[in-house]
Amino acid sequence: MRYAVLGTGIVGRTIAAKLTALGHETVIGTRDPEATLARTEPDGYSNASFAEWLADHSAVRLITFAESAAWAEAVVNTTAGGASLEALTAAGADNLAGKVLLDIANPLDFSAGMPPSLNPVNTDSLGERIQRAFPDTRVVKALNTMNCEVMVDPSRVAGEHDVFVSGDDTNAKKQVTELLVSFGWPAASVIDLGGITTARGTEMLLPIWLRLWGALGHADFNFHIAGARTSA
Amino acid sequence: MRYAVLGTGIVGRTIAAKLTALGHETVIGTRDPEATLARTEPDGYSNASFAEWLADHSAVRLITFAESAAWAEAVVNTTAGGASLEALTAAGADNLAGKVLLDIANPLDFSAGMPPSLNPVNTDSLGERIQRAFPDTRVVKALNTMNCEVMVDPSRVAGEHDVFVSGDDTNAKKQVTELLVSFGWPAASVIDLGGITTARGTEMLLPIWLRLWGALGHADFNFHIAGARTSA
Repeated sequence: MRYAVLGTGIVGRTIAAKLTALGHETVIGTRDPEATLARTEPDGYSNASFAEWLADHSAVRLITFAESAAWAEAVVNTTAGGASLEALTAAGADNLAGKVLLDIANPLDFSAGMPPSLNPVNTDSLGERIQRAFPDTRVVKALNTMNCEVMVDPSRVAGEHDVFVSGDDTNAKKQVTELLVSFGWPAASVIDLGGITTARGTEMLLPIWLRLWGALGHADFNFHIAGARTSA
Repeated sequence: MRYAVLGTGIVGRTIAAKLTALGHETVIGTRDPEATLARTEPDGYSNASFAEWLADHSAVRLITFAESAAWAEAVVNTTAGGASLEALTAAGADNLAGKVLLDIANPLDFSAGMPPSLNPVNTDSLGERIQRAFPDTRVVKALNTMNCEVMVDPSRVAGEHDVFVSGDDTNAKKQVTELLVSFGWPAASVIDLGGITTARGTEMLLPIWLRLWGALGHADFNFHIAGARTSA
């Protein structure tokens, strides 16, 4: 399948590399490809520059948000949560119409320092905002509750652990679940929470995720829901 | 130890019954004991009336918030989150001073219907509010992330699963951890997240807990953090 990954950060790179490794044609979409490629300094998280990463992943092309969304059959949002609606607007509602949008972003708000809070939160979620702003796109929230290395290689975390999906379109959730299984997730570890409003629940996992990261001293952990999986 | 459980709902009853079974002298504190005992109808959740429950648990005494807090060596807050500060104020800062307060309440806000949202949330938490309002009390947030039957009998949920503790006082967290172990929690399943501000993280688990309850169709589940428990 032709995938557009929106966002050039570590999550976008990790997802794009995995999609490519699985044989999918993959592009990364960004606001201004030339500007992205011109930056040579590491990003704020000490990752290599995007140009350096791209040199090692020559199967991936870097194009604009709009070009990438127009070309792709499915889209993955890995932009920073505070910039996601702007990025998707640049990608274009027409280019996104009818397509599955896997939304991995979290609406982290760093305006009051660390640890970040969430905005929106509690009575709304980024996933819902995106679905409302792009009603013809089939938004599925998933993978936003773990480190990106775990997203594409669940075996990094020993024992059973889970990934949540939220979305209003059953077929879109089925398509995302198949992608997750191809990433290495057992189908039994994919928990369908229901409609896109349930993204409130998964986005609100971020505050404890961040504190667990501090308490455990590493990011190779994940949530597991212990207990019988009676179907709804 | 002499325990005061504040709150006559199903959580308070379940905790009080367990404390009594473990040999602790236990009272339940409420605003108006006579009024509580006079109610004969089941509560909103179809539980038996408190008077009926008390008849089966004759070792437990029902007294006022203030009497219970004055008598007890340690206090457990199981009141509704929206009423907790009022209940604790009635219990009395002097009666609570120096004591460990295990806070199990969640600040669920039903004002906009179901599912409830949280208030406070995100940049504050009920646990923090209680600690700020009662600076001489040693507040430990714990057990608020699961059904009350699981709190006192973790074996109801198969496999490994965890309970989080948040609090500023190390000795208070140690005392609560010992209580949790006496409830049946393996010490390795007690995750110390850090100070009381980390209660934001555990209170914000409620939205996904509620949605998992819906998706799974039962409440005998719990969160497990998969991954190595490197100490902080």
